[in-house]
Amino acid sequence: MKIIVDAFGGDFSPQANVAGSVTAVNLLDDVEIVLVGDENKINFELEKIGYSGNKISVINAPDCITNDDLPTVAIRQKKESSLVVALDELKNNDDVIGLVCSGNTGALLTGATLKIGRIKGVHRPVMAALLPTKNNKEVLLLDAGSNVDCKPEYLLQFGHMGSVFMSGMFDIKDPKIALLSVGTEDKKGSEFSKEVFNLLKQEKSLNFLGNMEARDILSGQYDVVVADGFSGNIALKGIEGGINFALHNLKYAVETGSLFSKIGYLFLRKSINKVKSKVDYRNFGGAPFLGINKIVVKSHGSSTAKTIYASILQVKRMYEFDMIRKLSDIFGD
Amino acid sequence: MKIIVDAFGGDFSPQANVAGSVTAVNLLDDVEIVLVGDENKINFELEKIGYSGNKISVINAPDCITNDDLPTVAIRQKKESSLVVALDELKNNDDVIGLVCSGNTGALLTGATLKIGRIKGVHRPVMAALLPTKNNKEVLLLDAGSNVDCKPEYLLQFGHMGSVFMSGMFDIKDPKIALLSVGTEDKKGSEFSKEVFNLLKQEKSLNFLGNMEARDILSGQYDVVVADGFSGNIALKGIEGGINFALHNLKYAVETGSLFSKIGYLFLRKSINKVKSKVDYRNFGGAPFLGINKIVVKSHGSSTAKTIYASILQVKRMYEFDMIRKLSDIFGD
Repeated sequence: MKIIVDAFGGDFSPQANVAGSVTAVNLLDDVEIVLVGDENKINFELEKIGYSGNKISVINAPDCITNDDLPTVAIRQKKESSLVVALDELKNNDDVIGLVCSGNTGALLTGATLKIGRIKGVHRPVMAALLPTKNNKEVLLLDAGSNVDCKPEYLLQFGHMGSVFMSGMFDIKDPKIALLSVGTEDKKGSEFSKEVFNLLKQEKSLNFLGNMEARDILSGQYDVVVADGFSGNIALKGIEGGINFALHNLKYAVETGSLFSKIGYLFLRKSINKVKSKVDYRNFGGAPFLGINKIVVKSHGSSTAKTIYASILQVKRMYEFDMIRKLSDIFGD
Repeated sequence: MKIIVDAFGGDFSPQANVAGSVTAVNLLDDVEIVLVGDENKINFELEKIGYSGNKISVINAPDCITNDDLPTVAIRQKKESSLVVALDELKNNDDVIGLVCSGNTGALLTGATLKIGRIKGVHRPVMAALLPTKNNKEVLLLDAGSNVDCKPEYLLQFGHMGSVFMSGMFDIKDPKIALLSVGTEDKKGSEFSKEVFNLLKQEKSLNFLGNMEARDILSGQYDVVVADGFSGNIALKGIEGGINFALHNLKYAVETGSLFSKIGYLFLRKSINKVKSKVDYRNFGGAPFLGINKIVVKSHGSSTAKTIYASILQVKRMYEFDMIRKLSDIFGD
């Protein structure tokens, strides 16, 4: 299976993107990678690693969309950018199964929606965030920030898409779905979230457990958390801020603490690094864009080679469980 | 100054509420406390502590509103509950300056709004959460969950109220205000948050810095974070979940780690407890209700004696900087 990797746009591009691709073709027999971007720079990285196999090809795209570019403008005007060329390749080649990109999130979502198009019947494609839980499982939060203004029926579809994704990726039977709200009781929520609640409640094909609070997103009680893009993004970044705050304070308590604390910290450093690594997006692959007519994974902006590899693995898995067809079956006529 | 403490409704009531009140009258010369609730139980606690001074009085209220009660129904029907009697006392006595309550949040907000009333010109009273920051200061997040459906002009007022509060409580000149959104750029946000952005931007009397993200709430860059009650509550609980997740994982990493890790944890336990204590609501006093015509502080449901004492201190401070008059000056004609 052929997967496109946009080699540019991330903080550690193109090194990380090229290195992650090499790891992928070395470890995964059936995967071929098409790297898109400035071919001189890509070839330089490939040579540096010493890759000389035939499972990686390169398509030249001299330009690059940065995080400062306005998504719609960039997609229209930067026709020779790695992202636009990558999307054109994805669109025009039936043997290409998916795309990994660590660049401008808005441009990727806009470009994918415009060029690849939505699955028939889907109101809005959605960026979903896959997060680790306390019991060492995963939870999918969607919308993670792609549609800040939603209608209730979009969120019903997010529930379906999340359910298909979690069921296929992790072999979960009837994924447990909850709606992000301000309390767990049925009546809690805004006018908007109450409408969504009723839609989800009525949908008998979904395993909808009801309302939940942001403090329980990582609890492991749920497989899918449904939210509008504004609230979902705030929950995601609130969690990030909380983790950050706890680790910062631990460091501070040690620095200002007794000699015993300092010795303890030395002993514990490995465990603390394990926590950091666990909550680090970069080790967790990417955010799937669901509802697009091909597989698209947004890898984190600070993606390392490991992240790019994990994102490629995700694309492969989504292809293997036939995600696009499964979604089409739900939303199509 | 006379402050009313609702002795019931919290997880550790009435012990914690009575003990915190005794601490307050012992440490604060000018403070008198009126405890409201079942007088037998309150007197029992006072005797247990051995308090025999004349700075605490008790008003009997045999009933209690619990967290299972529906706010509007409870306020109307439980006329002999500690909260309703406490609110009546607050309303009818000019020498009573404020109220501390650790019970049902919704009932307190509903009751205070109905019985005490709003400051003239205030659209909606608001519950604000005072949180610790990385640089050991405080940040006020409002709305923390009291008004889940807001109009843009409510949030403009939240900005004013937050500014008055932070300026008075902590002697901050021109508190730095930001709007909770999904990105820091001016154009980022939902239709709703963009409207709020414009209102805040146009208000020259406020030190409005622009949009901010939930991950930076505790960064110390801002004094006041303005949000609608739905997003604000989600941010708050997301942060709580993140902190919880980090500490949980640290413990897990130690438990499954090497002997060195375990030894390190023993040495570090004090520092970890310091972090836990720092992020524990219970040590942080209460959430002020702003926009009500008297001072009202919601102490955490799991308030200990320490929390109740901290909440009493907050009421005292809000009285000393003349908060109600300052807010009336802004919103009145």
